[in-house]
Amino acid sequence: MDNIPQATVRRLSLYCRYLEKKEVEGGNFISSRELGDGIGTNAAQVRKDLCFFDRFGTPGRGYPVSFLRRRLLAILGIKDQTWRVAVIGAGKLGCALVGYGGFNRQGFEFVALLDNNPEKFGRVYGALRVEDSARLDEIVTRRRVDIAMLTVPAPAAQGVLDNLTAVGVRAVLNFAPANLDIPAQVAVRNVDLAVELEGLSFFLVGLRSRSDNP
Amino acid sequence: MDNIPQATVRRLSLYCRYLEKKEVEGGNFISSRELGDGIGTNAAQVRKDLCFFDRFGTPGRGYPVSFLRRRLLAILGIKDQTWRVAVIGAGKLGCALVGYGGFNRQGFEFVALLDNNPEKFGRVYGALRVEDSARLDEIVTRRRVDIAMLTVPAPAAQGVLDNLTAVGVRAVLNFAPANLDIPAQVAVRNVDLAVELEGLSFFLVGLRSRSDNP
Repeated sequence: MDNIPQATVRRLSLYCRYLEKKEVEGGNFISSRELGDGIGTNAAQVRKDLCFFDRFGTPGRGYPVSFLRRRLLAILGIKDQTWRVAVIGAGKLGCALVGYGGFNRQGFEFVALLDNNPEKFGRVYGALRVEDSARLDEIVTRRRVDIAMLTVPAPAAQGVLDNLTAVGVRAVLNFAPANLDIPAQVAVRNVDLAVELEGLSFFLVGLRSRSDNP
Repeated sequence: MDNIPQATVRRLSLYCRYLEKKEVEGGNFISSRELGDGIGTNAAQVRKDLCFFDRFGTPGRGYPVSFLRRRLLAILGIKDQTWRVAVIGAGKLGCALVGYGGFNRQGFEFVALLDNNPEKFGRVYGALRVEDSARLDEIVTRRRVDIAMLTVPAPAAQGVLDNLTAVGVRAVLNFAPANLDIPAQVAVRNVDLAVELEGLSFFLVGLRSRSDNP
């Protein structure tokens, strides 16, 4: 599975979501064209993405909706599986993530919320109390953390990432606007809101200059 | 500027951030190689990205750090410019975004926080009070909103997007896990945490199956 492009994996999530909607509506089969339209891509891309894994479709009938959905959930590792998530950094974003109920339903369970500020220790968010990040090694190991969310300030991010990988965490969702050195065998996904906002700003400047010089 | 790839725009943000760090450290010139290393790309990509805009470098000396940074900030539309942002959906995430102080420093100012739940009206987050999303048209127009952040539940997202674009909003950062129909001349960037988490889950399943079958 090492050779699957990240963009394909991303689309698998979107296919799942569309198939869920389709299943609720009572659809039995779906064409690669409809599935592509549903997530904003084309039929050829759908076929190419799914071919990485299996031959799911029946010529002339399309893909069986609930079978395909269950297979994709299994491929994504979110069928009958709960991943244990620790949030490092109990700032506004970290606490909002822990308090958000949606992830649990999707197979991700929050098991720890850590911070290095003693004033925050013991405060309750969602089902968790803030604990001392000095105990990161022990807590991550004992609670068998699979995935860490990094919501610390940028200058602290690399140190925390190094600590996490030293105790065996292999998957990290990073919200800190930092360029991290990522060890081998570790997956880091970056969610960088400032970069997204700046992309929108760039677009607006372009719009404005076009309307100034029509 | 219509032909600039989104990945290039994204890297411009990262270049700016690295150049800022370099400037603070007192660097005067930087090679395309160092700039590439700093954000995890290579020298050829740096030159290609910057060539879309201008010839910034001097052969043999590299790029002048603070000049390049100021030019990139201007290109991104975040130099001497503040964009006015409305957040639609005063759930946990929406309120956390408004409460987060970092965007303001970066040229993005929150000017409205809307929700359709009367129980939330008047609650204060950051410098804003929650207002009735039924007044979206009036509020967006009067406060000259440039960018909207969509933090509503998925089924509501398309309707809100349509309302926003009808009153002239052209840039949207969407957090709702919905496949939106995006009108022409409107830029939507999606931040989908579930998709990122599922990507990590996919990676972990791959790791696990490799260690089971070495």
